[in-house]
Amino acid sequence: MTELRKDPLTSRWVIISTERASRPSDFNSERRRRHAGPCPFCPGNEEETPPEIMAYRNGGGLPNTPGWRVRVVANKFPALVTEGDPHRQGEGIYDRMHGVGAHEIIIETPHHDQTMATMPEQQIEDVLLAYRDRILDLKQNPRLQYVLIFKNHGEAAGASLEHPHSQLIATPIIPKLVREEVDGAKQYYDSTERCVYCDMIRQELTQKKRVITVNDHFVALAPFASRFPFETWILPRTHDAFFEDARREAYASLARILRETFQRFEQVLSNPPYNWVIHTSPFREDDRLHYHWHLEITPRLIQVAGFEWGTGFYINPTPPEEAAQYLRDAGA
Amino acid sequence: MTELRKDPLTSRWVIISTERASRPSDFNSERRRRHAGPCPFCPGNEEETPPEIMAYRNGGGLPNTPGWRVRVVANKFPALVTEGDPHRQGEGIYDRMHGVGAHEIIIETPHHDQTMATMPEQQIEDVLLAYRDRILDLKQNPRLQYVLIFKNHGEAAGASLEHPHSQLIATPIIPKLVREEVDGAKQYYDSTERCVYCDMIRQELTQKKRVITVNDHFVALAPFASRFPFETWILPRTHDAFFEDARREAYASLARILRETFQRFEQVLSNPPYNWVIHTSPFREDDRLHYHWHLEITPRLIQVAGFEWGTGFYINPTPPEEAAQYLRDAGA
Repeated sequence: MTELRKDPLTSRWVIISTERASRPSDFNSERRRRHAGPCPFCPGNEEETPPEIMAYRNGGGLPNTPGWRVRVVANKFPALVTEGDPHRQGEGIYDRMHGVGAHEIIIETPHHDQTMATMPEQQIEDVLLAYRDRILDLKQNPRLQYVLIFKNHGEAAGASLEHPHSQLIATPIIPKLVREEVDGAKQYYDSTERCVYCDMIRQELTQKKRVITVNDHFVALAPFASRFPFETWILPRTHDAFFEDARREAYASLARILRETFQRFEQVLSNPPYNWVIHTSPFREDDRLHYHWHLEITPRLIQVAGFEWGTGFYINPTPPEEAAQYLRDAGA
Repeated sequence: MTELRKDPLTSRWVIISTERASRPSDFNSERRRRHAGPCPFCPGNEEETPPEIMAYRNGGGLPNTPGWRVRVVANKFPALVTEGDPHRQGEGIYDRMHGVGAHEIIIETPHHDQTMATMPEQQIEDVLLAYRDRILDLKQNPRLQYVLIFKNHGEAAGASLEHPHSQLIATPIIPKLVREEVDGAKQYYDSTERCVYCDMIRQELTQKKRVITVNDHFVALAPFASRFPFETWILPRTHDAFFEDARREAYASLARILRETFQRFEQVLSNPPYNWVIHTSPFREDDRLHYHWHLEITPRLIQVAGFEWGTGFYINPTPPEEAAQYLRDAGA
């Protein structure tokens, strides 16, 4: 059983996952604990995961058997579960609810050793289309407010399995950072009647110093206030609030710019650990005019001191202009 | 030269520290890079640090010579520097200013191998009084809005030197998480005319299930919405907005509860890596009625996936009630 709890000061929700509970002595070996045995995400080991939620297959084939190109399963140790009612309740000054939602794994490829730099474009497009399909499905559940799609690559980025995969967590609340971005964008729109991301893209494409690469639908740039060395955002060049509403050809274009960006990372940083997260509009609000979906990639190159969590304050040793220059100069 | 830059969406300020700039190839070895040679914080090596800002000494003695109990120096690689004018400026939709502020190191003891669990209480009190002295001094600089005091212990918590030390960063802006807490507390006060932290302490002392230990002036508890396993907050039991305004006897009492808490950590988690941060009132606001200073300790026991930075969403595998139970049961 898991529980969602709200900090009474900052409205930050936390998932308290007793499913994963560890004894204090377990923590000492936590960093060394890696999955032992055969990879549960490789073809032929389908029985090692919870049953398939969906998969793309060439020419049919049974669920939970090899032959898939992309495969989506429930997380074996879910942070949130689909059963039950949120059952919101107070306890004095505190708020909590049952951990209702979803926690799924998107297995991106049958090939254990591929990376975003080596995967064919078509394969990356399949992954993006799987994201879209899962969002469209989960959106129909009226209890859910948001689907967080994210990827941890490399041990330093929190990945416990090597096989290429991403995750989604569907939540009955809107994550704090998304809430802040949506509200910030609304405030900007209210005073200017323009989308702040559209303005940002226009300014970046004019100044050029933080742009990494551009294609027909997307721009990859190092954000002005980058928190991490080589932090990179990929944004649709024309205004679009929902990841899942993009036109079919946009996903191919996104696959192309992702692959190119990771090839540039590969050249400059040689397969760095990284996280990515997709920020898209909450399901049940009308943010169509002011919000602009995007994908944020944060390489994990430096040991971030935990004080960042205590302050919200980041120290970045690499100016985004320098990072963008390195990535531009690298051949893709 | 460093620069403060503001994210146009979330009002998050970031320090872009070109002083620390690294070539991309340096990042590969970053995790293994530890200080080589003699410890610059040990007595006898005073010339290895920037000149002393202040020190506590028994019976006098010259600055920058041995004989100190606590010693404060500027950080050799400062994130912010004291010289110059903030020179706030816009650049299209962006805001930036020069990195004006201060970045200091508080060397907590002459003894290289001490920890918070083994230091004498009097020594910890000296450290806390040094924090206070530095805050009171920096507060006189009208350009500064806040002093962040924090400690990284252990490599996994971002410490690059083993010798016990804390740091302070004085900033011309108010850090985002402090801003949120202060605003949240004000909102609560406006609707209830009570301090939310005082209400929290009252509820916790009644329910008892998340309290770790209590003394005459302070309570140590596992917060209801803990983000991390064994996250612990230490709060003054009576309302107090400013760390630096506490009465003299409160620092001895805080030293006592800190030592006891770390002895409990030692028993349960055996010298875990951790961070602490002090949240106190901003200098130039009147938050006296609604804000309540406190110290937050976050052990670094699990590899936090970077998606927390992309979402503001935390998954905690250890319920605070269990953590508090373990720590209560441990002898101090």
